[in-house]
Amino acid sequence: MELWFKEIDESQSGLTFRVKNVLFSKQTPYQRLDVFETEFYGNVLVLDGAVQITQKDEFVYHEMLAHVPLYTHPNPRNVLIIGGGDGGTVREVVKHPEVEHVDLVEIDEAVIQAAKSYFPEVSCELDNPRVSILPMDGIEYIRKKPATYDVILIDSTDPVGPAEGLIAASFYKDAFKALTDNGVMAVQAESPFFYPEWVKKIFSNLNGVFPVTRLYLSFTPTYPGGMWTFGFASKGLDPVSDFDPSRIPEGLSFKYYTPELHKAAFQLPAFVQALTK
Amino acid sequence: MELWFKEIDESQSGLTFRVKNVLFSKQTPYQRLDVFETEFYGNVLVLDGAVQITQKDEFVYHEMLAHVPLYTHPNPRNVLIIGGGDGGTVREVVKHPEVEHVDLVEIDEAVIQAAKSYFPEVSCELDNPRVSILPMDGIEYIRKKPATYDVILIDSTDPVGPAEGLIAASFYKDAFKALTDNGVMAVQAESPFFYPEWVKKIFSNLNGVFPVTRLYLSFTPTYPGGMWTFGFASKGLDPVSDFDPSRIPEGLSFKYYTPELHKAAFQLPAFVQALTK
Repeated sequence: MELWFKEIDESQSGLTFRVKNVLFSKQTPYQRLDVFETEFYGNVLVLDGAVQITQKDEFVYHEMLAHVPLYTHPNPRNVLIIGGGDGGTVREVVKHPEVEHVDLVEIDEAVIQAAKSYFPEVSCELDNPRVSILPMDGIEYIRKKPATYDVILIDSTDPVGPAEGLIAASFYKDAFKALTDNGVMAVQAESPFFYPEWVKKIFSNLNGVFPVTRLYLSFTPTYPGGMWTFGFASKGLDPVSDFDPSRIPEGLSFKYYTPELHKAAFQLPAFVQALTK
Repeated sequence: MELWFKEIDESQSGLTFRVKNVLFSKQTPYQRLDVFETEFYGNVLVLDGAVQITQKDEFVYHEMLAHVPLYTHPNPRNVLIIGGGDGGTVREVVKHPEVEHVDLVEIDEAVIQAAKSYFPEVSCELDNPRVSILPMDGIEYIRKKPATYDVILIDSTDPVGPAEGLIAASFYKDAFKALTDNGVMAVQAESPFFYPEWVKKIFSNLNGVFPVTRLYLSFTPTYPGGMWTFGFASKGLDPVSDFDPSRIPEGLSFKYYTPELHKAAFQLPAFVQALTK
């Protein structure tokens, strides 16, 4: 028997791969959660039919979401992650020795459990003593939160269902208030090729709240089209001119992120640049 | 009835999209050629089951293959394109007013005919008086060719079947001899995520022949993984330090290429950089 997964969207196109085994399937209170074993991608975590992470390529998204803001900020001590229950972003954040504490606010505890069972090399730092896991709605959590965090990372699913409010201007206003004076934020910001309207809305909403806003790009093969954006927003720090590569300890290396790529990722193709106008 | 196209490779994964109409199908002397009409991508050209171009995203590949070498060379007058029978690379090359002549060497005339019939906005410059179309094998064509071309562009299919010899060291040696003293070359160089061994082989073979070699990246949603490399090789010109953005006429703009992206495209993710060691 052959099982094939397909992730097809309104474009009537998408990704397909062969499933060796279905490892886990559950309807949680928030979403449908599946874990598949595949030949090429290793284990794959799927929420509501959309691939979230694969063992083969999760490093790209997690490294770029975490290190670009964390190496822009000169001294990130307190970090908030909203979403990201798989632990991949936590794993990257705790590589920064100056980070004293990480709050991970994940609405769906089933994601955390699935990550611990099937993605040990992704969830490996969820039990780190510097990390607190708060199983609740990030939108509620951040409402009226005082200036607490140096860096906020929005590691969300597509902006439908439970994650819809995570791209709203009101949410970004709450995030702004929850940041310290020098605070920076990075948000997953969708595909400029398949979902340009979402990219525009995210950028425009960030732009209405934060004085500094930029988009940056990375390649994630299992996200639609392979080209994925992040939104950078800060109270003043610029992700290129305020970035000091000497903060990266000698000998530390990543699979995707490099100091040169940190800067290059902000150079956008013309049609992506147009979405920020 | 619903028709779905799938491009699956050894990874047991790939691209799938719905086909509205099959516009053309033919077994040529060299390959199987299909043209599909789709909702999102417009018309799609497929050779031996692999997507070559779509109306929606062909601009990325053609702009990056042409403009990076052509804006690196200070005065590209004679240009050779091997492959590229669809005409997309020709269309970009003739945007450079200093280009006096383009030789397009395409082995399969059926590709040219299909492009003229179903991709008018791609093939639109194939009848330009500055362009000569030579229907023959590029490997044969370039053998013992004297120093003639300022720029050579290898716009090939995957290196199997008729295109296998287009990544061989012997072919690159012939290309080197066919270039003028200041000559530069760019070659399509495959996916670092799905075909790292091909990328390594192409880079290593270029490296054995040319004094200057670099890889650069772009996003093409319909190529496996969306992340695609090009190889840059020259007799001395560096694609970053010898690039003069003032050569781009004011007001001229592209859909993907920008002067900043020209330089940023050479900043590779760590795992891609490793393929050049």
